[in-house]
Amino acid sequence: MINVGIAGASGYTGIELVKLISNHPQATLCAVTSNSYKGKALTDLFPSMRGFESLICEDLDIPALARKIDVIFLALPHKISMQYVPALLEQNIKVIDLSADYRFTDAAAYESAYQVHTSKHLLNESVYGLCEIYRDQIKTSSLIGNPGCYPTSILLPLLPLLKEGLIRPAGIISDSKSGVSGAGRSLSLSSHFCEANESFSAYKVGNHRHTPEINEILSLQSQQPVTITFVPHLLPLTRGMMSTIYAQATDIATETMIRDTYDAYYGDEPFVRLLDKNLYPAISHVRGTNCCDIGIHFDETTRQIILVSAIDNLLKGAAGQAVQNMNLLFGLDDATGLNWVQGFL
Amino acid sequence: MINVGIAGASGYTGIELVKLISNHPQATLCAVTSNSYKGKALTDLFPSMRGFESLICEDLDIPALARKIDVIFLALPHKISMQYVPALLEQNIKVIDLSADYRFTDAAAYESAYQVHTSKHLLNESVYGLCEIYRDQIKTSSLIGNPGCYPTSILLPLLPLLKEGLIRPAGIISDSKSGVSGAGRSLSLSSHFCEANESFSAYKVGNHRHTPEINEILSLQSQQPVTITFVPHLLPLTRGMMSTIYAQATDIATETMIRDTYDAYYGDEPFVRLLDKNLYPAISHVRGTNCCDIGIHFDETTRQIILVSAIDNLLKGAAGQAVQNMNLLFGLDDATGLNWVQGFL
Amino acid sequence: MINVGIAGASGYTGIELVKLISNHPQATLCAVTSNSYKGKALTDLFPSMRGFESLICEDLDIPALARKIDVIFLALPHKISMQYVPALLEQNIKVIDLSADYRFTDAAAYESAYQVHTSKHLLNESVYGLCEIYRDQIKTSSLIGNPGCYPTSILLPLLPLLKEGLIRPAGIISDSKSGVSGAGRSLSLSSHFCEANESFSAYKVGNHRHTPEINEILSLQSQQPVTITFVPHLLPLTRGMMSTIYAQATDIATETMIRDTYDAYYGDEPFVRLLDKNLYPAISHVRGTNCCDIGIHFDETTRQIILVSAIDNLLKGAAGQAVQNMNLLFGLDDATGLNWVQGFL
Amino acid sequence: MINVGIAGASGYTGIELVKLISNHPQATLCAVTSNSYKGKALTDLFPSMRGFESLICEDLDIPALARKIDVIFLALPHKISMQYVPALLEQNIKVIDLSADYRFTDAAAYESAYQVHTSKHLLNESVYGLCEIYRDQIKTSSLIGNPGCYPTSILLPLLPLLKEGLIRPAGIISDSKSGVSGAGRSLSLSSHFCEANESFSAYKVGNHRHTPEINEILSLQSQQPVTITFVPHLLPLTRGMMSTIYAQATDIATETMIRDTYDAYYGDEPFVRLLDKNLYPAISHVRGTNCCDIGIHFDETTRQIILVSAIDNLLKGAAGQAVQNMNLLFGLDDATGLNWVQGFL
Repeated sequence: MINVGIAGASGYTGIELVKLISNHPQATLCAVTSNSYKGKALTDLFPSMRGFESLICEDLDIPALARKIDVIFLALPHKISMQYVPALLEQNIKVIDLSADYRFTDAAAYESAYQVHTSKHLLNESVYGLCEIYRDQIKTSSLIGNPGCYPTSILLPLLPLLKEGLIRPAGIISDSKSGVSGAGRSLSLSSHFCEANESFSAYKVGNHRHTPEINEILSLQSQQPVTITFVPHLLPLTRGMMSTIYAQATDIATETMIRDTYDAYYGDEPFVRLLDKNLYPAISHVRGTNCCDIGIHFDETTRQIILVSAIDNLLKGAAGQAVQNMNLLFGLDDATGLNWVQGFL
Repeated sequence: MINVGIAGASGYTGIELVKLISNHPQATLCAVTSNSYKGKALTDLFPSMRGFESLICEDLDIPALARKIDVIFLALPHKISMQYVPALLEQNIKVIDLSADYRFTDAAAYESAYQVHTSKHLLNESVYGLCEIYRDQIKTSSLIGNPGCYPTSILLPLLPLLKEGLIRPAGIISDSKSGVSGAGRSLSLSSHFCEANESFSAYKVGNHRHTPEINEILSLQSQQPVTITFVPHLLPLTRGMMSTIYAQATDIATETMIRDTYDAYYGDEPFVRLLDKNLYPAISHVRGTNCCDIGIHFDETTRQIILVSAIDNLLKGAAGQAVQNMNLLFGLDDATGLNWVQGFL
Repeated sequence: MINVGIAGASGYTGIELVKLISNHPQATLCAVTSNSYKGKALTDLFPSMRGFESLICEDLDIPALARKIDVIFLALPHKISMQYVPALLEQNIKVIDLSADYRFTDAAAYESAYQVHTSKHLLNESVYGLCEIYRDQIKTSSLIGNPGCYPTSILLPLLPLLKEGLIRPAGIISDSKSGVSGAGRSLSLSSHFCEANESFSAYKVGNHRHTPEINEILSLQSQQPVTITFVPHLLPLTRGMMSTIYAQATDIATETMIRDTYDAYYGDEPFVRLLDKNLYPAISHVRGTNCCDIGIHFDETTRQIILVSAIDNLLKGAAGQAVQNMNLLFGLDDATGLNWVQGFL
Repeated sequence: MINVGIAGASGYTGIELVKLISNHPQATLCAVTSNSYKGKALTDLFPSMRGFESLICEDLDIPALARKIDVIFLALPHKISMQYVPALLEQNIKVIDLSADYRFTDAAAYESAYQVHTSKHLLNESVYGLCEIYRDQIKTSSLIGNPGCYPTSILLPLLPLLKEGLIRPAGIISDSKSGVSGAGRSLSLSSHFCEANESFSAYKVGNHRHTPEINEILSLQSQQPVTITFVPHLLPLTRGMMSTIYAQATDIATETMIRDTYDAYYGDEPFVRLLDKNLYPAISHVRGTNCCDIGIHFDETTRQIILVSAIDNLLKGAAGQAVQNMNLLFGLDDATGLNWVQGFL
């Protein structure tokens, strides 16, 4: 059994991790931490957890944790994570960090979007936890930078075509939409029910900090500079995310090549589902699952490719992918403890 | 033209008043105040108001207001209202107070549910602004305690039957449900989109402070002590309220008498709509209107009467009724400036 | 392993059963039937099921089924179920019927609410599948009448107090609220998004056909005639149900006795959660679980008891309870295959 | 006073017209027709209309209508409209057709997206009712093809820049999102509450029939062939629409020129609101209004222009714009009877 700790269990991603690990056949939840709710039972914060009264939020005390856990999920804000990661690694605790702190290879790119990085040397050791693309590196790593939700929904559809030269690196656009849980459990006017309900809005047009993360991975993987246009929007629903991606096909691309490429990359993947021609994803079809559904439209005349992807932002976009990473770190199948998740109304 | 001021314009009730007065054919909006947003344009707080850039939030400076307004709506929190009301009245400004501060005749009842009352003497002068019941008194008053949303939805259906002796005063139950806007624009976890959406909950079971307000009016109007059971619930929608009320008929009551009584009370009222037998209200039918729809079920065998009422909590439950009160204060028809409101999808 | 068939897999309850059985460690899904979608893959009807392409809807052909299944869930409309049940039992297939056809002991009560019963003799053999109350009888039965969703939410809180003489049988009221999935997947104007969204309404006031089902069980279990007042309402959310129940305490009742009684009945139950004083359920806390949460308010002065219960109408109110029944029929723990369900945002 | 008829009053657009005309200071509603609900009161179809019991759905009997109305709104399905329009015009009834039947100049374009056109000769007489662009022609016309909702949300932001040569005609993309009311009141699985709620999906990717309408107007107005990429999506909300539009600036374009151009086109328009830099529209800000809000992002380096527009699909996208057209047809200000509409929570 894998002994697991979850730091920041009081947020939406944290509680989702708690539920996933509680259901995991090869893992035991040994510690949950919360800075704001130290000493409180998780059931007091999340009454849906009634029956799990023994889960008490504790301090993030690394020596104490080292005595009981093999791996820790950090569901902490950016910047806070890197305060703990070096010491955790020294104690031989594997780390799956859900903040942005270890997603970047290029410290300057990180710093342009976030703040000064205090453990740059670890950026060479950390692996970007997009399991379908970085599986081999993940298996032998001790530090995973779990991908952002928007990047997951954009990279999974784009990478196969870009790496195989079927789309042009220039002019890629992702028009993305996220449910409100993506903004977390902290209070803000934009997450107030009466403001988000029956509304829809664009925000951070052209300057969302997930953009450099997306660009870095696209560039590294396709070995050329790629800069996409990314516009996020807020959906009036709790969980789910969709990206509608516009790209130009290269001259060699055909519909068959496109579909064959996806098959080669994802045909055996448990959590990527390619849709047949003329079918497109819906958030309801992936909500509550760890799946990324991808629909493909290719107009042979205009050479335009439209990719539509859907994920559950809290699962494949956060906690689900984090558990998939844990499975890889410990030599388990990707789907262990995740295949019960099958969506719901 | 009536010159109008609105205090507390930055809340949901306040902005609703702004819209109603802006559309009112006999009123001019001369001042809006906000404690938190002094100097800010209302359009910055509520972008739906773009086009009304001239509305700037000012201080609640009574002498300054006295030079430009005839009447003021106080969309302020309980306790804050009574800090201003005596001075406003001295300046001959009529006051329609949307807080609870002047809804009670009995100061002790007010103090048991709220706090010490600092201008008790005015409780004899203030009139409870339930227009259909207190119309005559309202017309000659200078200080209106605008009813709470729950009380409005409960009193309108109950009072005719109780006053005419068709239902028993004992054992009345109101199971009430409110949209999230009833909790205002302030941030709280229970108003967070992800917590309220796809949920429904009971709260303050047996001790909501609208209960003494309801009991006082029922008792005064029926000249007997009445104590109801009131359980509020939170609906996952922005605006709207429903009360399902259970009472026992007295021996004399018949279905015909019940319907005739309602006709006598409300047949000519522009904002109370009695539904035919076997029809019941829906919140969508009253949302965006100043109407209270009432459905009636009477079981002759068990003698049980079930009343179902629906209102828009921000209109008939707050700002709409407040404007109806203003109309009465200034000798206008109840519906002036309110009859354009006809519901919407 | 238990070999399972699901009839009527194309409805919301049917697909929920498919998901539960697919995840069940002791059961194998051997057949799904659908009258409307014969020959179609379930993934075509429910794209969230992608990955389960082998599930093809077949005919409800009893001899063919008899060769492969031990038990069948009938997620069929009332009246259709009883066309199949006698023949299924003859083939030694255990039956868990989610329609109303075998919920009643008294055929006349059934017929007053539904239609002529064509296999009345089986009403003596069938057991009402409210697991917490009828567990022993269920274990030795072959035919389960799975409770309605409203009755489940009302009977679980009421029965302990009524059986132990702590509440009076007269004057009980249940004000109940259901999500839209309770009305099924068939198209109707009241389930149209634009009609249900941002609305709330009372329907079938005083004459919903779940009333005789509730009355029969309350009467049988408490050995006295009980007739409740039941008013259902439609909530603007997909799944979840709440009942707010009003009753009068008998003279002997005390708060301690009430809580002790619940503890005695449900203290060891995996799917009934009693809330501490001053806490009340929310639908979000039970959605996606098989739990019934119960909150209790007792006013010692007025002797009024208010019970608030919440369930997921598709789980404890339908498919989840049906699987719990299957577990009992086959000697498994109630929670087998159901305890992974822990709610979600 | 203008005497008005509304055909197809029983749909969502129809009832919205009924409400607008009922509130219009210069118009009288003289007739409502419905094919499905002949003889029925509108209040039976739309209980929110209680109080307007006199509105009875009648036949679309042209000679009878000719005796009482000056203008008719046709809120009828495509193809049905053109069965009536020639005869209506012969009776000197002005026609505002909300179907697609008279939106096109090029009959072949219409026929490629819809069906055979049976009154092609009228396509030269009809005027495309996008008021801000075709105001002069509308004023002198008798037949208005009221724009589609998606085209309105796309053409208003695009036309000024395209006409003034500030964006390139090639490679324009509109990623558009509509509320469920856009699909009408007819029953369909995709409009079922449980399917649309908490979901979001792309549909008709690359082949929605609003595309040729958009292309024709863009091409006519900019005097060059323009073909855009248009992907519609379904939002989980009742009313509202947003288009996020991606285009490339021409070499001459500067931020100042772009904003000046919009000012020149729309500075005096009552229903187009240009947002300041770094502000973007939200559906909640336009819902219940006849406004189109436009946000503008220009990246000087990449030369990419992102335009974000929001409208209420039932108002500026249908009934509101239709009334604006009526105002122009009868020499009134655009905003007559429309300026009370100011949005709501």
